[in-house]
Amino acid sequence: MDDKIQAAFEAGIKLGALYHQWVGTPISPETAHTVETAIENAVGLQPFVEDIRASINTELMTLNSFGYSELAGKMFDVRITTKVGSSVCHAELRLEDEYPLMKILSIE
Amino acid sequence: MDDKIQAAFEAGIKLGALYHQWVGTPISPETAHTVETAIENAVGLQPFVEDIRASINTELMTLNSFGYSELAGKMFDVRITTKVGSSVCHAELRLEDEYPLMKILSIE
Amino acid sequence: MDDKIQAAFEAGIKLGALYHQWVGTPISPETAHTVETAIENAVGLQPFVEDIRASINTELMTLNSFGYSELAGKMFDVRITTKVGSSVCHAELRLEDEYPLMKILSIE
Amino acid sequence: MDDKIQAAFEAGIKLGALYHQWVGTPISPETAHTVETAIENAVGLQPFVEDIRASINTELMTLNSFGYSELAGKMFDVRITTKVGSSVCHAELRLEDEYPLMKILSIE
Repeated sequence: MDDKIQAAFEAGIKLGALYHQWVGTPISPETAHTVETAIENAVGLQPFVEDIRASINTELMTLNSFGYSELAGKMFDVRITTKVGSSVCHAELRLEDEYPLMKILSIE
Repeated sequence: MDDKIQAAFEAGIKLGALYHQWVGTPISPETAHTVETAIENAVGLQPFVEDIRASINTELMTLNSFGYSELAGKMFDVRITTKVGSSVCHAELRLEDEYPLMKILSIE
Repeated sequence: MDDKIQAAFEAGIKLGALYHQWVGTPISPETAHTVETAIENAVGLQPFVEDIRASINTELMTLNSFGYSELAGKMFDVRITTKVGSSVCHAELRLEDEYPLMKILSIE
Repeated sequence: MDDKIQAAFEAGIKLGALYHQWVGTPISPETAHTVETAIENAVGLQPFVEDIRASINTELMTLNSFGYSELAGKMFDVRITTKVGSSVCHAELRLEDEYPLMKILSIE
């Protein structure tokens, strides 16, 4: 299998995985940072991950009547770099046209 | 509704919720602490929670061939205190006879 | 421990658990029924559950640009009955004032 | 972006997503079939998916003291086909050497 294809596959796995692992987590602007760290640590353990940066858009949080929010797909702003052999894939998960889109930014 | 019953209901909600939110997270002895903190922060946001302490038993982690583990139900060691009116419920989630058991410790 | 308190605790566990297990699932009005069945089957396996009825409010689904939706907390309409000893707890998870509220309906 | 790379990325997303969405679900040999159907329906809604077949290995279930099991990563046996432009990617999630491995089977 071509390394570039494999690197893209691995990036897809990690983005799909983190989305469904973390969506629904009770969250607030004050706790967002610990969730970002927990996501980065969890993804960073997985094979072929070179770099991972997770940011949660706290401006999209609407607090419920109990004063907190829930991590929604549209809040994710994630960049990941995977590497297989000498191929490197940069991909992201980010809100685009109201949809939390996962896309490849570049393959080297 | 009796406050003691309500406090027990709320404790059950939080334990059931955190179990299914976090189980499956990629984890290692080195990253366990950030997951514990993230769990405590998330649960602490929810209504009627007075106190929450989450600990993950790293000794039960068996590393896969890629060098990490996955958060399993048996690894949870969680104590929660909920309060409704003047009633306080202490409950826990902990491995007991090979089953990650949620149980009430006391109601005051 | 009083059976009524225990029954309420068990109902809370199941509602909290199903919410966080299933929220985020890709869904559409056409597939909602299989998800309802899967939820009912999963919850029905757990201890102390006498009855479970899960319904997903398809009218609250807004389809994304790819033509599907995602199971959100506000879509749940769930009734559960737990029994411990001779105590029976009826509880529900349902949208109330924009919040997916879990509450006890009655304890017998 | 090359269509083959894109098809592999999409296959990765779907496998990573379903794994973390469904792992932890209470399950038994009797209810496995509804979970398989629910997974297939959910994944089938997502963009670029041509075909999806989910099977859960009931032989790997060990029943707990309450008579049920929990969906674990090792139980998954999933085949997915994604298509982007004229490129088709076949991939799977299946236990290999004790690890629930996601891999590309072929790209056409």
